[in-house]
Amino acid sequence: MYLSNSENGRVYNFSAGPATLPLPVLKQIEQELISLPGVGSSILEISHRGKAFISILEETQEHLRQLLSIPTNYKILFLQGGGRLQFSMIPMNFLKGRSEEAEYLVTGTWGKLAAEQAKMQGPVNILYNGKDHNYSQLPDLASLSPNPNASYLHYTSNETIQGIQFSDDLQFGDIPMICDASSDILHRSLDIQKYGLIYACAQKNIGPAGVTLVIVREDLLDKVPNDLPCYLDYRNHAEHNSMYNTSPTFPIYVVNLVCRWLQKTFGDLESVHKFSQQKAALLYEQIDTCKGFYTGHARTSDRSLMNVVFRLPNEELTTLFLQQAADQNLTNLAGHRSVGGIRASIYNAMPLAGVQELAKFMANFYKKNS
Amino acid sequence: MYLSNSENGRVYNFSAGPATLPLPVLKQIEQELISLPGVGSSILEISHRGKAFISILEETQEHLRQLLSIPTNYKILFLQGGGRLQFSMIPMNFLKGRSEEAEYLVTGTWGKLAAEQAKMQGPVNILYNGKDHNYSQLPDLASLSPNPNASYLHYTSNETIQGIQFSDDLQFGDIPMICDASSDILHRSLDIQKYGLIYACAQKNIGPAGVTLVIVREDLLDKVPNDLPCYLDYRNHAEHNSMYNTSPTFPIYVVNLVCRWLQKTFGDLESVHKFSQQKAALLYEQIDTCKGFYTGHARTSDRSLMNVVFRLPNEELTTLFLQQAADQNLTNLAGHRSVGGIRASIYNAMPLAGVQELAKFMANFYKKNS
Repeated sequence: MYLSNSENGRVYNFSAGPATLPLPVLKQIEQELISLPGVGSSILEISHRGKAFISILEETQEHLRQLLSIPTNYKILFLQGGGRLQFSMIPMNFLKGRSEEAEYLVTGTWGKLAAEQAKMQGPVNILYNGKDHNYSQLPDLASLSPNPNASYLHYTSNETIQGIQFSDDLQFGDIPMICDASSDILHRSLDIQKYGLIYACAQKNIGPAGVTLVIVREDLLDKVPNDLPCYLDYRNHAEHNSMYNTSPTFPIYVVNLVCRWLQKTFGDLESVHKFSQQKAALLYEQIDTCKGFYTGHARTSDRSLMNVVFRLPNEELTTLFLQQAADQNLTNLAGHRSVGGIRASIYNAMPLAGVQELAKFMANFYKKNS
Repeated sequence: MYLSNSENGRVYNFSAGPATLPLPVLKQIEQELISLPGVGSSILEISHRGKAFISILEETQEHLRQLLSIPTNYKILFLQGGGRLQFSMIPMNFLKGRSEEAEYLVTGTWGKLAAEQAKMQGPVNILYNGKDHNYSQLPDLASLSPNPNASYLHYTSNETIQGIQFSDDLQFGDIPMICDASSDILHRSLDIQKYGLIYACAQKNIGPAGVTLVIVREDLLDKVPNDLPCYLDYRNHAEHNSMYNTSPTFPIYVVNLVCRWLQKTFGDLESVHKFSQQKAALLYEQIDTCKGFYTGHARTSDRSLMNVVFRLPNEELTTLFLQQAADQNLTNLAGHRSVGGIRASIYNAMPLAGVQELAKFMANFYKKNS
């Protein structure tokens, strides 16, 4: 069990991203930072086209293929530009110039931003807009009727800011499903065959800022238009195995170490999922126990295992909560500026002890201030 | 004087990029990798919107402003996607939808690739094409007559693959000058006011892969079209001080350390320039002394201070040269696959001792094999 990463004056960092990394991963980076074993140069100094890096790249892909059971007809790419660039690349590659609309589920801030960028490239239908519920609820899937010929359907598996999450893979007939899994990839196993494309910026659950994982079904690449800027055409990255231009070598190296750590510590994603459920339950239990004092943002059935978002009765108590938590080395708990309140991000690398400390703190804070 | 970085089994790494970094920089990264002093988290784990990172970002900008004497009407941005994404962003922002052509000087592989991407966005005139000379010569500037109303003029200050370099800033009337300085930024002082935009991916002279420095004159941003994908619109990055989306935090942190190291070690870019000239002279001296055995690719007057590119009499000797050099811990000396032969990249972080070792090796190799 992954319990604690507290040492060297380190805090429990509940940042939504860039987010905490496993301490064993940081230690390995530290250990080989000056010179990669057998290479004589730092990972920061080696060519993306050299043997040492290619071996790291391929190992990372192999880890991901194993952990997520990714079939061989899916490419695993590592790009730059974060989720934002994907918001535009997806419709440029799969919507631009087509007559059939793309369907978007807007369940929170990130889904909304993705849809806005898509509208600049082609016809978009907002199949569900959670705005009326202040993005606290997921859609009733049975009530949705997407165009069966849609170019694709885009959704956000976990809305980091609002803390709502789909607990299963979505599927609507043969529509290619495109999923922004930036904040929950690798927290549970997925049925990859249900997806056309999955993307995830690394800085939440799988690594540092600066690399975005894209898993794409090869046949989708057949219809990409031929007039895209070179960096924005997925085919270039697929054909050159993510070495079309200089790969973000260091972030990929860290993703590899994170994958290794996941396999060593948990074995598989079923165990990771249980671990996530266990951690989230500790915090939601406090919210439910201290009802009226702590108010969760998400509808109970739609609660996220990754980002636990809640409010206190007023601004004064919120400020006091954040101050006193920080005094106990529980940091970066302020909610996103658009939502306010508290947000505890508890991705894979957040140890159980950190969540236990926070739950204890929440219970004590309630006792003293309710 | 910056002499040597050999220790811990490290080699002299002549890679063209990602390239060697200063050992003192690597040591500082190593030292604070687990926990940034006073922060309690790794640089890899902290929010781009938190105080600790913003202070790093601002310090990096301040260092660059001092080193390059960047006037206040220029923005300093840190983007992702490398030079390749800049090849497209530049014409999307400054050419698309305009009637006046962009002028391109094609002095080597990178200039050629930049021009190809520009043609997809608007009218382009190749003002000079060095292809006929196998990209071994720069143009005679006096003979060039660019359209005085051109949207901009793009050139590559140093062609990494062919090893040819402009030794001064270019200027043609009021045409906004756009310069790809990926492989020589910070090796000499520039008259920034002569430029509209300068860009440089970090992994050659200023840091690790994953961040691209863009220095842009503010008034150029006034005419950017309003229909660009959000990540590709320079204005978004300028307005949000490179925090429009999650910044590549770690590469920026390393760039900051490299700038600090430059200031501490050399004081100013005049000293860096002398250091570059001293190192390059050692290698070109061998090429000139061993004429007929070593053949430089660049015309003598256009030689690069950063990438010394030359051939040996045949393939066998080239292979032997690379093998024997590697045996002496002089690595990554193979020329780019499109040019062949030998390329020694000697950016700022390559210590004098590394170049001296290589020059000695070249002299000995000549004696034994000529």
